[in-house]
Amino acid sequence: MTADPLQIALVGFGTVGSGVARILTDQAASIARRAGRQVQIRRVVVRDTARARDYMPAGVEVTDDIQSVIDDDQISLVVQLIGGLSPAREYMTRFLDAGRDVVTANKALIYECGRELFEQAARQGRTIGFEAAVAGGIPVIAAVTQSLTGNQVQSIEAILNGTSNFILTQMLNHGQSYEDVLKEAQALGYAEADPAMDVDGTDAAQKLSILTQLAYSTRVTLQSIVQQGIDGLELLDLQVAQELGYKIKLLATSRLNGDGLEVSVQPTLIPRHRTLAQIDGADNIVSILGDAVGRTTYSGAGAGQLPTASAVVADIVDFATGRTAVTFPSIVDASQQTGIAIQPKEALQRRFYLRFHVEDRPHVLADIADILGRHGISILSVRQDARRDGHDYARLVIMTHQTTEGCLADADVELARLECIKGTSIRLPVAE
Amino acid sequence: MTADPLQIALVGFGTVGSGVARILTDQAASIARRAGRQVQIRRVVVRDTARARDYMPAGVEVTDDIQSVIDDDQISLVVQLIGGLSPAREYMTRFLDAGRDVVTANKALIYECGRELFEQAARQGRTIGFEAAVAGGIPVIAAVTQSLTGNQVQSIEAILNGTSNFILTQMLNHGQSYEDVLKEAQALGYAEADPAMDVDGTDAAQKLSILTQLAYSTRVTLQSIVQQGIDGLELLDLQVAQELGYKIKLLATSRLNGDGLEVSVQPTLIPRHRTLAQIDGADNIVSILGDAVGRTTYSGAGAGQLPTASAVVADIVDFATGRTAVTFPSIVDASQQTGIAIQPKEALQRRFYLRFHVEDRPHVLADIADILGRHGISILSVRQDARRDGHDYARLVIMTHQTTEGCLADADVELARLECIKGTSIRLPVAE
Repeated sequence: MTADPLQIALVGFGTVGSGVARILTDQAASIARRAGRQVQIRRVVVRDTARARDYMPAGVEVTDDIQSVIDDDQISLVVQLIGGLSPAREYMTRFLDAGRDVVTANKALIYECGRELFEQAARQGRTIGFEAAVAGGIPVIAAVTQSLTGNQVQSIEAILNGTSNFILTQMLNHGQSYEDVLKEAQALGYAEADPAMDVDGTDAAQKLSILTQLAYSTRVTLQSIVQQGIDGLELLDLQVAQELGYKIKLLATSRLNGDGLEVSVQPTLIPRHRTLAQIDGADNIVSILGDAVGRTTYSGAGAGQLPTASAVVADIVDFATGRTAVTFPSIVDASQQTGIAIQPKEALQRRFYLRFHVEDRPHVLADIADILGRHGISILSVRQDARRDGHDYARLVIMTHQTTEGCLADADVELARLECIKGTSIRLPVAE
Repeated sequence: MTADPLQIALVGFGTVGSGVARILTDQAASIARRAGRQVQIRRVVVRDTARARDYMPAGVEVTDDIQSVIDDDQISLVVQLIGGLSPAREYMTRFLDAGRDVVTANKALIYECGRELFEQAARQGRTIGFEAAVAGGIPVIAAVTQSLTGNQVQSIEAILNGTSNFILTQMLNHGQSYEDVLKEAQALGYAEADPAMDVDGTDAAQKLSILTQLAYSTRVTLQSIVQQGIDGLELLDLQVAQELGYKIKLLATSRLNGDGLEVSVQPTLIPRHRTLAQIDGADNIVSILGDAVGRTTYSGAGAGQLPTASAVVADIVDFATGRTAVTFPSIVDASQQTGIAIQPKEALQRRFYLRFHVEDRPHVLADIADILGRHGISILSVRQDARRDGHDYARLVIMTHQTTEGCLADADVELARLECIKGTSIRLPVAE
């Protein structure tokens, strides 16, 4: 080991940042072997320099001044571990401008500004590592950009939001309502105080967008993704699905078909025997179908201090060895292909689960079936349970044959006019 | 795309070789994007040049002469896809000597000669890509050598032999004997005419050895691996295990404990809820527990033409980009660490499933329990079913508490002397 140490700066020393510092200390010897050189934290940038922090290595310069990193010629890699877009975007631009390579775990930043930041980095001969931005410690960026490179990816199916998966698992396993589980999850720190981005599907959609752009070399914005959160689900939906042989998961899907790429994030009924249905708690899973390799599946912790830090450290080592320098340009090249068109939302074709609360009186089923039939939606099975004591309405579940989002949206307009349907109805796609 | 094309030679054009040629043709454009240059097959070496072959690209020089590859300065990478040790070892040595980099899918060669070939390559500044040698298209070599580099690996649990897993799945699902399923599998091409290396655990042990050496930077020979095949299993073992809440899989395990590394390939009872238990058919799975990332799991096709070719193509692209040149030296460096000691076989500590065929007469259970007790083996549960009509003997299944291979081996000597035990008994470890 004769090479000079790699000197890095950590910008942000929160949960993930301190996890990175801990791993770099605990695994220093094996990381040096893999990296071909020592990795040393030279500066840490935090907002409050007075606060004591766990795992802060001795002798590190702790500062609240970004400029001191830019001015320090000894630092070649900046590990930027702050969330949100501002000031993360400005910081990264400044680091790249100053000739530094960057590693980040900021998924929102990569989703929103990835294209411009990648191009800036490429122009300046710099690199950005972002393995930790999607699915935490599971190496899916490496899989899509390197290991599966001999494949035309046919589909990606993934559970990418741990909070949603945790909530759905708890609801089903403990027979609790969405609201009760969410409160518990917030108290335990499994869910944010404001969980909107997790439970409405935005977080998963941003991650799916990043994966899909890498896998298909085409641009995917949130506006082109069919997005539905778990916040409208009732416990009974999970229970009925289970009785029908399915589990409901917030499934992120990209799938190539004759008309382009269908991209969606929706609570989805997944046949119970599939591995995807068996991922419980806060874990993530990514299942990729390639035309050569067939289906490969990757699972593990998609968030959390050390799992995320594990991916950040892999990016640091990739930079140290020079791997990033050869990988990153091909990622930028591939992302500039225009490639495959995203299918219009209304054209997405699936089977559906429809659940209504209906008045318990004659001709209700006939009214609903009539509307569906006139929109070309064919019914596979119907299940109406007896109205339970204390409930004003009966529950009606209809499973459809293949149809489109568009047909259902049209039917919804008419269904909304039916007085026999009460409260919120729900429709969920069914995975094969 | 201004770089010169990468010119390669394929040595061997069997199942995997023709798969590689097919992918390089079908995915030429996207591979060129990822590789930063075109990839062209310039020469193919086969034994019988007269035979017509599918997917042979037009204009390729087909020859039976290895020397013509060595003499061709335009070829920088040799993709060597022949099985066995001879002449594969000699060929690879000659290619490395001649200054060529090599990609191979030959697991036996990497197991037997990996150390010497890696060192030769390193001395000559060349590289060897071998992602396809373990678990086919599942990128586990990349995971262990790159993505999980910030982790001390705690354990690897894997199903690495597709033939064995296919046989066990068919036995249980169709209620067939080992012998009947094996014959069918051979007829269908799922098992070799001589399946010994698959069903006796050698193939899985070689793959586990390669993975373990990479993950723990220590030397692991087959002699130090507890190895047991599936050939002694009876259908009833699979059925009883299922009734007890387990599936039996040929499980390859490396696990760090206080006394070193325990390494084994054995048919193992795996709790039904674990993902490992749910991998059926010819698929492979690798589940790695890291101290930072927690458990990450990788699954897919572990063999077959296109899955294996997919991994070979990933190695070709890694070479083309220059990634291999930076990754390979760190693999060689890491493998030269002496590291962690392999635990003696007799010290391996697990719970066990013991199955006996016994005479249906008094004091049989007492005799067996006495021997186990005197060797310090504590019984967790016993199950003796009524002797079935037409059978001379009753079936006795004992589940033990934690004990060691050594204690059980000592007890076996005494159990073998008991006249009440008939035929072949079996003992299998139980995974947590």
